[in-house]
Amino acid sequence: MKSSRGGITAPIGFVAAGLHCGIKKPPGLDLALVLSERPGPIAGVFTTNQVTAAPVTVDRAHLAGRIGRVLLVNSGCANVCTGPHGMRAAQEMVRLAADRFHIPPRQVFIGSTGVIGKPLAIERIRAGFPRLVVRLRRGGGEEAARAIMTTDTHVKQTAFRQKIGGAVITIGGMAKGSGMIHPNMATMLAYLSTDAAIAQPALQRALRKAVDESFNCISVDGDTSTNDTVLCLANGMAGNRTIQAGSTAFRAFERLLRAACENLAHQVCRDGEGVTKFVEIVVTGARHEQDARRIAQTIATSCLVKTALFGEDANWGRVMAAVGRAGAALKPERISLAFSGVPIYRRGMGLGAAAERRVARIFRRKEFRIEVDVGLGTGSSRMWTTDLSYEYVRINASYRS
Amino acid sequence: MKSSRGGITAPIGFVAAGLHCGIKKPPGLDLALVLSERPGPIAGVFTTNQVTAAPVTVDRAHLAGRIGRVLLVNSGCANVCTGPHGMRAAQEMVRLAADRFHIPPRQVFIGSTGVIGKPLAIERIRAGFPRLVVRLRRGGGEEAARAIMTTDTHVKQTAFRQKIGGAVITIGGMAKGSGMIHPNMATMLAYLSTDAAIAQPALQRALRKAVDESFNCISVDGDTSTNDTVLCLANGMAGNRTIQAGSTAFRAFERLLRAACENLAHQVCRDGEGVTKFVEIVVTGARHEQDARRIAQTIATSCLVKTALFGEDANWGRVMAAVGRAGAALKPERISLAFSGVPIYRRGMGLGAAAERRVARIFRRKEFRIEVDVGLGTGSSRMWTTDLSYEYVRINASYRS
Repeated sequence: MKSSRGGITAPIGFVAAGLHCGIKKPPGLDLALVLSERPGPIAGVFTTNQVTAAPVTVDRAHLAGRIGRVLLVNSGCANVCTGPHGMRAAQEMVRLAADRFHIPPRQVFIGSTGVIGKPLAIERIRAGFPRLVVRLRRGGGEEAARAIMTTDTHVKQTAFRQKIGGAVITIGGMAKGSGMIHPNMATMLAYLSTDAAIAQPALQRALRKAVDESFNCISVDGDTSTNDTVLCLANGMAGNRTIQAGSTAFRAFERLLRAACENLAHQVCRDGEGVTKFVEIVVTGARHEQDARRIAQTIATSCLVKTALFGEDANWGRVMAAVGRAGAALKPERISLAFSGVPIYRRGMGLGAAAERRVARIFRRKEFRIEVDVGLGTGSSRMWTTDLSYEYVRINASYRS
Repeated sequence: MKSSRGGITAPIGFVAAGLHCGIKKPPGLDLALVLSERPGPIAGVFTTNQVTAAPVTVDRAHLAGRIGRVLLVNSGCANVCTGPHGMRAAQEMVRLAADRFHIPPRQVFIGSTGVIGKPLAIERIRAGFPRLVVRLRRGGGEEAARAIMTTDTHVKQTAFRQKIGGAVITIGGMAKGSGMIHPNMATMLAYLSTDAAIAQPALQRALRKAVDESFNCISVDGDTSTNDTVLCLANGMAGNRTIQAGSTAFRAFERLLRAACENLAHQVCRDGEGVTKFVEIVVTGARHEQDARRIAQTIATSCLVKTALFGEDANWGRVMAAVGRAGAALKPERISLAFSGVPIYRRGMGLGAAAERRVARIFRRKEFRIEVDVGLGTGSSRMWTTDLSYEYVRINASYRS
């Protein structure tokens, strides 16, 4: 497996473009288009939030057809809580692309990210779309990635490449989102492209698993948005033998897709505005994986742990309190707690002042690990989290909708 | 029902005292004692956190005896994650009081609040205890309330009085805790006293219900502590006919106890450090009460809602996003959202710029209501929350354990 340059247009047969159509203030790019030379299987994973944006409703319906060819995404407006107008605007986005490329509307997937509750200025998308189409090109991936940003401070792209089933397969991708930090600027969006030939059920299964182990393992503030979407489109142009679920080639593809998703997820997490720390949480020895995940999640989303990270306060008691309220099976006297390999709590008690001084030094690092061994079983889980800073409060308190 | 002056010593037959014994830096009061002239039924509700402080373990065991007479509580150290030493220290606190007052150890209830993981300086409690006993007096309630404070900025006391079962019954109480804001200074503690004659099972049932509708309905940051404890001791000296569960007198007692608990809970919530807003969340029309509570809780603990409250940003989309991810049964087009009576979202869409301006004015108030009508059933729930401010981050980031 090799990480490579570029993003959504890195695999064979994809072109992309981005431009400013007028939803954001100029000169912010706010409309992105990705086109595959050929239609192919598409997989998707969406927000579990029941208040759902119109584009998510549209994409869910189109996913039933299992075939995709075009992605059209705007930033600056989330098109959610916008009633029938919002649904009509979403359907017009689909029609614009379907008509232009002479393809079935179900092969068009759309996305929106930005302010909740504001009507989508569809007339600006309609006016800008022809100019966007003529900009489509092999090198347009970065421009498209830029056009889906809201408060992101960096463009987020990824590409990985590996020989699978007799051919070199590339997976490319782009994402936006400052963690879940801005669900009002709604959303984590990630789009992946691949030239692999793969059966749709296999692609869906691989994507679901990759998302569970990447995007679902980062937490900035525990809020999930109304628009979260991950899509992966596979056009089969690499020339490999079609990958079926369960095969050796499938497992290799799974790993490749997970690497791409994990790389994008970490970029999203690190780009959380106000973030000064990037912390990995490793839970082992839980009764089962679900318990391990509960514990990791409770630590990752605890405001008290996150402010301690920001303050570089080696307050391990807050981590223990989070472990205790996670709802997992526990025997407190069996738990061990360490930070990047330095133990601080074992057999029901703290390890004293010398250990605390060593842990205090770990807390001054930009990146470190919180390691919880529950001491009961073999369940394990990993998550990534960030600190909670003044800057987080400033951004979220001063943002005007 | 009448609110009256005083706190834990307001009912007949209770004396109390507080002093500085040396756990905190001088001159902070750090040891509180409450004594009832007669033993009586006691009820208790404890933290659900599985990492439990030694005093909570002791109190849970003593509660099996159902009779109490003394409360002994220290601040400055939570006596949690302290291993066998911590349990021995807790047992010595019990013995000190039992020996001095010649009562069974099971009638002594203890509490600790402060830093997690630091050994309890039991020798200072031992040395200070005789001086504390001679200070016991009718007017000592406020001193005791002061001695259980950690980062609290106000003493929290309450007293309510009503004629029930042929006699005037008083319930008094004291509490500490800046919301769940400081589980490292661990804890929400509340102690209630009453001169009512009441059967222990009735007292336990009334307390459980009162706590559910008061302390369990406030949220500052969603963290629960390792030491949370609410105890209510009833000495029967008011001379009423003994209250049994299910009677008219019982329902009156329940209301009185809930009033006392709600009053203390609101004091705790408003005293959350860094708090500038006090917001009531009212959810109606949910499928059932549990769903209503889920929604209220998700709104109350959302970092994004809480930073919007602080920033006076009328960002109703964040409230809708919280409703959507609460895990309750929903039909988004049936939900109505209003702020202190001003509607902002109905039938799947926002109500426009004029409504937003009216809601913006509500957000500038110190206290207001978030009103969600789910539009599906009759389940309802109320919670109280606060904003999330710079000050919250400062306090929790800069606190050194």
